[in-house]
Amino acid sequence: MSKKITFLPDKADIMVDDGENLLTAAAQAGVYIHAFCGGEGVCGKCKVKILEGAVVSGRAQHLKAEEHEQGVRLACQTAVTSDLVVEIPERMGKDGRALKLKPKTTRAISARSLEKLIGKWDVDPPVEKRFLKLEPPSLDDNVPDLQRLLRAIRKGCHECKEPTYDHPEMLRGLPFILREANWEVTVIMLRGKREEEPDRIIAVESGNTTDRLYGLAVDIGTTTVNGILMDLNSGKVLAEASAYNGQVRYGEDVISRIIYSQRPGGLRTLQEKVVCTINEIIESVCRTVMISPSDISYIMAAGNTVMSHLLLGIDPKFVREAPYVPACSQFPLTRAASLGVMAHPSVRLFLYPSIASYVGGDIVSGVHACQMHKSPELTLFIDIGTNGEIVVGNQDWMMCTACSAGPAFEGGGIRHGMRASSGAIENFHIHPETYDPMIVTIDRTKPRGICGSGLISIVSELLEAGVVDQQGKFNRAIKHPRIREGRDGFEYVLAWSKDSLIGEDIVITEVDIDNLIRAKGAMYAGYQTLLESVGMTFTDLDRIILAGNFGAYIDLERAISIGLLPDLDRDRFYYLGNGSLLGAQISLDDHKRFRERGEVSRLITNMELSENPHFMNHYMAALFLPHTDLNLFPSVRSKLAEL
Amino acid sequence: MSKKITFLPDKADIMVDDGENLLTAAAQAGVYIHAFCGGEGVCGKCKVKILEGAVVSGRAQHLKAEEHEQGVRLACQTAVTSDLVVEIPERMGKDGRALKLKPKTTRAISARSLEKLIGKWDVDPPVEKRFLKLEPPSLDDNVPDLQRLLRAIRKGCHECKEPTYDHPEMLRGLPFILREANWEVTVIMLRGKREEEPDRIIAVESGNTTDRLYGLAVDIGTTTVNGILMDLNSGKVLAEASAYNGQVRYGEDVISRIIYSQRPGGLRTLQEKVVCTINEIIESVCRTVMISPSDISYIMAAGNTVMSHLLLGIDPKFVREAPYVPACSQFPLTRAASLGVMAHPSVRLFLYPSIASYVGGDIVSGVHACQMHKSPELTLFIDIGTNGEIVVGNQDWMMCTACSAGPAFEGGGIRHGMRASSGAIENFHIHPETYDPMIVTIDRTKPRGICGSGLISIVSELLEAGVVDQQGKFNRAIKHPRIREGRDGFEYVLAWSKDSLIGEDIVITEVDIDNLIRAKGAMYAGYQTLLESVGMTFTDLDRIILAGNFGAYIDLERAISIGLLPDLDRDRFYYLGNGSLLGAQISLDDHKRFRERGEVSRLITNMELSENPHFMNHYMAALFLPHTDLNLFPSVRSKLAEL
Repeated sequence: MSKKITFLPDKADIMVDDGENLLTAAAQAGVYIHAFCGGEGVCGKCKVKILEGAVVSGRAQHLKAEEHEQGVRLACQTAVTSDLVVEIPERMGKDGRALKLKPKTTRAISARSLEKLIGKWDVDPPVEKRFLKLEPPSLDDNVPDLQRLLRAIRKGCHECKEPTYDHPEMLRGLPFILREANWEVTVIMLRGKREEEPDRIIAVESGNTTDRLYGLAVDIGTTTVNGILMDLNSGKVLAEASAYNGQVRYGEDVISRIIYSQRPGGLRTLQEKVVCTINEIIESVCRTVMISPSDISYIMAAGNTVMSHLLLGIDPKFVREAPYVPACSQFPLTRAASLGVMAHPSVRLFLYPSIASYVGGDIVSGVHACQMHKSPELTLFIDIGTNGEIVVGNQDWMMCTACSAGPAFEGGGIRHGMRASSGAIENFHIHPETYDPMIVTIDRTKPRGICGSGLISIVSELLEAGVVDQQGKFNRAIKHPRIREGRDGFEYVLAWSKDSLIGEDIVITEVDIDNLIRAKGAMYAGYQTLLESVGMTFTDLDRIILAGNFGAYIDLERAISIGLLPDLDRDRFYYLGNGSLLGAQISLDDHKRFRERGEVSRLITNMELSENPHFMNHYMAALFLPHTDLNLFPSVRSKLAEL
Repeated sequence: MSKKITFLPDKADIMVDDGENLLTAAAQAGVYIHAFCGGEGVCGKCKVKILEGAVVSGRAQHLKAEEHEQGVRLACQTAVTSDLVVEIPERMGKDGRALKLKPKTTRAISARSLEKLIGKWDVDPPVEKRFLKLEPPSLDDNVPDLQRLLRAIRKGCHECKEPTYDHPEMLRGLPFILREANWEVTVIMLRGKREEEPDRIIAVESGNTTDRLYGLAVDIGTTTVNGILMDLNSGKVLAEASAYNGQVRYGEDVISRIIYSQRPGGLRTLQEKVVCTINEIIESVCRTVMISPSDISYIMAAGNTVMSHLLLGIDPKFVREAPYVPACSQFPLTRAASLGVMAHPSVRLFLYPSIASYVGGDIVSGVHACQMHKSPELTLFIDIGTNGEIVVGNQDWMMCTACSAGPAFEGGGIRHGMRASSGAIENFHIHPETYDPMIVTIDRTKPRGICGSGLISIVSELLEAGVVDQQGKFNRAIKHPRIREGRDGFEYVLAWSKDSLIGEDIVITEVDIDNLIRAKGAMYAGYQTLLESVGMTFTDLDRIILAGNFGAYIDLERAISIGLLPDLDRDRFYYLGNGSLLGAQISLDDHKRFRERGEVSRLITNMELSENPHFMNHYMAALFLPHTDLNLFPSVRSKLAEL
């Protein structure tokens, strides 16, 4: 049950989940509350007054008894348990008058119409079980065991093609299973990859086991591997698990993994590590529902091109060297066990096809999940990251490209950058007059650093407050203790060392901002170049779909403010979530959807941006906040004009 | 160049190969010559006079100088080197008058019309090599290596299906081979099993290797494994080799192999042994033509059901237990290397499908080779052996069965029985008045025993000379030192101990004859039961085709005399030779023929003879020489009537 919070005096409303933290809710609502310590409750600044409704509050050593009686609480220590009306204390300016803040528009990108986006799918998986009662053989009918089984499978289906079967595993055990089971067995069959292909018997089990049919969907990320266990009879998700990709210790990104793979034994090590990670996931989900890993009948996976190569033990050497050629893009259906995956020997592991060296199966899976290839709407599909992937098109054609944004979105190249983990500043507001910060960290601890979504918040807030200009330079005219010259030029102090977990001031520097500008500039130039290559512009777009984890944390307004996303009608933006995992899950559930994957990759044409002069021009023009051409960002232009 | 020999006074003609031994030639021509020692030259009995033509003779210590001068030679020491006229010395009867012999009709079954039987086939093998010059990749064209290869393969062929490919072997090496070869490579492709199936890339080689394309055809016999190496560019046979099946030490026949396979580790041992034997063959043929085993690109094999199971490591346990059910009849295309066969990892080993537990791929291969499935002529296909296989039918339908003849045809259950090896009596004539023997052994040594074809010769001669009656009992009225009562009842002494290699008399006993009668009776009852099951009789048959090694040594007249083969127009009999190897060879040469194999096995329906009451009735009636119903053997009846 979600709860409605109304913040006074701004009258800003927001719907939040039951139990949400009040500081986080305020930050999401665009309501500024004084908050220096990230939400740990130690700075005692974020006092609010609960006018209506019930809350649950924690530590309150900063509150006087009378304050508590009046309904004052520390927002960061308060959980929302009912609809609320909350009053934010007015702050006084230097001149003694109350500083009224206009409420800001913030907007998490909606996952509201996910169903509209991805449609419905059937529970009709590419693997199926059939229970068969065979006629026992006699002298009058002593056809071989396999032929007896095939005959039973085809019974009553004269047009059916004769199934193929797995050799030698299935065949070697068949005579014994049939007799032990007294000729009552369950066959596990893979449907043909295409409609016209025959089905394939991959295993035979004694008795009737049709009520147990499980599949695993896996997203093999460079950093994190996510898996979900599906009940393929009902289509229900039974368990989820995720784990750090065991390859991480050999390099943070795909390039360093490729470099490691070139060492003696490196390829093998990386292959083993990702397999171990998948096995962890399998163990975890199987433990949750008390089944054996050998009960899983299909594994659908998606990963980027390098992850896919490494999983299959294919050397990705030439992915890294111009002209960036992967060994293959369509990966063959592989026996999971042959890779070392903890699975029954019959179980297949499917990997989504890649498009190019830097547009991988994770993107194809995401595009597949959101059914771009079946929609007439012109769609821009974006996965933001160190390597940003962009797809544009519709049911008739698609173009894709990858642009190297650099690691800023993942906290790389940022003085106090960090991954999105505990203590990372993930949301930020600045008081437009006092220039004091409101910082919210992941897990609401004292801050340790800044993650990608925090960085976007910070830069857009600094821009909109006039603290930095469109070039990302600090306004030298502002005199404020938090704005100072540091070793990398000017910087803003997000948290004093006393309020930080790391024992030093946490700052954002002009160099950091410059890195972010280059990262978002590369993405934006990527969209432009791709659209331009097909003679289109942003206004032709019907939809913009954000995929990938990063999208979940991006505030749409702020991403547009800094020029990371185009300034279009906000209703056209959708957030898909982990499209890679979602595509794998849908393919696992619905063989008809699964069979479409070929169309998806056939529709998509890759375009190389490296050495592309148009891209370089667009990129140079995008090295501004939000852009040198403000006509591209009318809503941002309006905001900046008010400064 | 063959030579014509005319034997006087019989005026019997025969055509023989240059260099043929004269005693062997006489035996084949049905001309009796006194010969006790098997052809070793020690008894000195086989004197003949060369009237015209040139011969080369060996040892002649038994000849006086004047005899030599008159052209007298020992037939067994004489090689034919030109057309000859040879006079056989007349023998005197007890009454002093010359014993004139009527020439006998003997007839090796003709392989004359083999081409008519099997037709012509193309050199268009199921595996092919294509040399490709790929465009090196560039930034404008950086499709993955595999897709680049596929594109080149499909170039100029828009309807061609996209080839599939081997994973992971082919894929893992591909990026390196392409670059090392400077993008000029040869792909080795398997054609689809059916017309509509896509081709499959199984390997990629650096540079142009299209001039080297080799295949191996293998017949996996229970006793002997035969292989031939083919040049698949020309269709020429490059080398042949054969070796005893290494499983022989674990049992002579399929039943004892099955029994051994049930011991701990037995199946694995038998699998390894036959693989070692195939490897011996591979080594031998490769050595002959100086290629590496890894240059062989395809292996086509055929064997009986048990041999096929054992090769693939599939337990044949239930083949032996009623109702005699094999694990499978269609064997999957297997990687040869996965079985341990010395071959490139990409190389496939094909095994001809079986029909039933005792009608195996060797028979299907033979039927395929002789194109029964495409001929309107009603054909009886026979492979005589311990396990006799019989197929009857034509292009519209085929029935097959197996009958357990017992080991008599391989010398089993016969007092002095032996396999067809050096010293085995393989041909025999008896003097109809003196009852003296003419024995010819393999390699013309002193005799060591009797092989199957010798046994048939002996029994038919004894029958036609009235020495044994139609029940196979010796005529007690004949008083002759060679006809005597031994420990198994009456017997005929084929060789006195002085003329034998084993230091004892070599005899044929009534028990031996009885075993042969039961063996041939089972075969004949098999033909009858099968024909009867489809409402036909022998007279409906257009052709009788003998396959298997045994057929090569059978004298048609004699086989009919004892009732092993039906008494039909001799011109309808054909000898196919090793049909199993021939079928494999043809499939290796011609993929269109190869693709027909499915039709062959689909056309054939198996019939079980065990517990079949019709079979038992026919069998009981066949336990006579040639049969209880002499109407079935009119030509034999005539001969016997002259006695």
